[in-house]
Amino acid sequence: MTDVQMTLDEVHALTMRCLVAHGCDEANAGAVADVITAAERDGCHSHGLMRVAGYVATLKSGKVNGHANPTVEHIAPAVVRVQGDAGFAPLAHARGRSALIDTVKTQGIAAMSLVNIHHFAALWSEVEPIAEQGLCAMACVSYKPAVIPAGGTKPLYGTNPLAFGWPRRNHPPMIFDQASSVMARGEVMLAAREGKELPPGVGVDADGQPTTDPDKVLEGALLAFGGHKGSSIAMMIELFAGALIGECLSFEAAERDNNDGGPPQGGELIIAMDPNHFGDADGWADHAEKLFARIEAQDGARLPSSRRYKNREQSLSAGVSVSSKVHEQILQMCAQG
Amino acid sequence: MTDVQMTLDEVHALTMRCLVAHGCDEANAGAVADVITAAERDGCHSHGLMRVAGYVATLKSGKVNGHANPTVEHIAPAVVRVQGDAGFAPLAHARGRSALIDTVKTQGIAAMSLVNIHHFAALWSEVEPIAEQGLCAMACVSYKPAVIPAGGTKPLYGTNPLAFGWPRRNHPPMIFDQASSVMARGEVMLAAREGKELPPGVGVDADGQPTTDPDKVLEGALLAFGGHKGSSIAMMIELFAGALIGECLSFEAAERDNNDGGPPQGGELIIAMDPNHFGDADGWADHAEKLFARIEAQDGARLPSSRRYKNREQSLSAGVSVSSKVHEQILQMCAQG
Repeated sequence: MTDVQMTLDEVHALTMRCLVAHGCDEANAGAVADVITAAERDGCHSHGLMRVAGYVATLKSGKVNGHANPTVEHIAPAVVRVQGDAGFAPLAHARGRSALIDTVKTQGIAAMSLVNIHHFAALWSEVEPIAEQGLCAMACVSYKPAVIPAGGTKPLYGTNPLAFGWPRRNHPPMIFDQASSVMARGEVMLAAREGKELPPGVGVDADGQPTTDPDKVLEGALLAFGGHKGSSIAMMIELFAGALIGECLSFEAAERDNNDGGPPQGGELIIAMDPNHFGDADGWADHAEKLFARIEAQDGARLPSSRRYKNREQSLSAGVSVSSKVHEQILQMCAQG
Repeated sequence: MTDVQMTLDEVHALTMRCLVAHGCDEANAGAVADVITAAERDGCHSHGLMRVAGYVATLKSGKVNGHANPTVEHIAPAVVRVQGDAGFAPLAHARGRSALIDTVKTQGIAAMSLVNIHHFAALWSEVEPIAEQGLCAMACVSYKPAVIPAGGTKPLYGTNPLAFGWPRRNHPPMIFDQASSVMARGEVMLAAREGKELPPGVGVDADGQPTTDPDKVLEGALLAFGGHKGSSIAMMIELFAGALIGECLSFEAAERDNNDGGPPQGGELIIAMDPNHFGDADGWADHAEKLFARIEAQDGARLPSSRRYKNREQSLSAGVSVSSKVHEQILQMCAQG
């Protein structure tokens, strides 16, 4: 089957239609459609329309509240908490973001915890709007066990991505968003869907044996990037998105989850800082550009996020190609709603 | 030559004597001796007495101020800045720490920047006293270019360590402290000193060719851990310890440095959070223990820092073994002072 060409507005409208058909209200459906559209726009198909089926499955099972009404409060002068009301993460982010940004601009640094959310999106789309307000921001989230602690044998950590955004004056923010596993689970799912083999060293099968078969890795476990160092970062993210904020660790999320194919309940932590409050308000932006210029001057090196921004430029004018299999599946779900 | 057996008090006294002989005042020498003694105590020889020669070299060259009088100020409600007065980092930490801790306990999260310092120590000894006050803390510092950006050809990033500490109730804090390179420069220096070969994949020689010879790697460059993901973290640390706080990026530190063998001028960033202010004051400590128990239950997996604490237990009763070559070198430096 050939791919389907869609404009970004069509991607957004199709996503909304499908989610509303399965019990989301407009606010929740719109916030999810925003992040799915952003993923397709930036060429991140593993977080795009491919995920609609998971969102729908979890609405159908009743695990996620499609009418969630997230609430925002300060629980300390520099700590904002969003209670997600068992909804999908995007509306909780949209509701909490301005309180975080205002707090950072006053305090210099602030944190936002999100609890009782169901997170199924890419983190870069959550740090980007904060970085666009001139702040730098880190975000991290856990999931269900998929990654083996270094030296161990069984999955314990989620793929636990860490994203970081840095504001730039005449460019969109520099952002990286990386799983603590060698490869993101979404990428492994994409390989499985497309029947592609994985590179060696990504994961093991259910018996703990190395394999390059993505289906077997999905039944088995992923390895942490960089051995014990990536494993340490995955552990820190469990603590940040779980123990620190009073939400599930990955293994607890799995124990509680109904395995409907959608995201489990979990938490997220964002830490943001205002470079204007760190002693070099006039200099920091140009200073960082000196580093970026040195990176880009090296043959073969590139700034994280540069590929996404190139994809974005193209999608905004030419629209996106969507797998006809995924497109057909969503149309069917719309009809079944 | 056989090793020299020393008590920890002897390690401390020898370090102080040598630094005072070369122009440090008691306050600065004592703070440096504290971190060197802690490193020897915990079996981290690459940050122990081996470093005294570097501290002395840079006092002799006049690059570092042995009488530094670091000052502490709030530059935003949740941001503490320590001006290091061109001294070694340890006294700046000792001076700023209580302001950071007090601020975190009020605000929920706070940052401390340290500028105009010369950093030559391990980061774990800087997050440990913060974690001992019931806070979690991240610290990062840059240095001089030693690590190649992923895909690139030339060193641009320092080995840029990231440390993280988490407070525990009936245990010393869980702490990791890891270079953004596959191996820390201190470990490569130790291998060079001991005439040991490196594992493959650690670094390249001055021509960019892979080598396992530590001397050649010290002339060449290190690779980032985990490919582009470790490289992203190294870049984030350049931004935190440099551009954000108005201090040198690693390449700027190198351009400014006199290459006397001691640490260049640079900056450091610490971010700390009080788990009591994140919504689960009663539960977070036990909650984290559930994660740690699951890690330790896996054969082959271990908690970061567990090896250091074992070494510590032994050193506190039995003292430490010091390379007679290093011991002799320090005695000679004492005599020359």
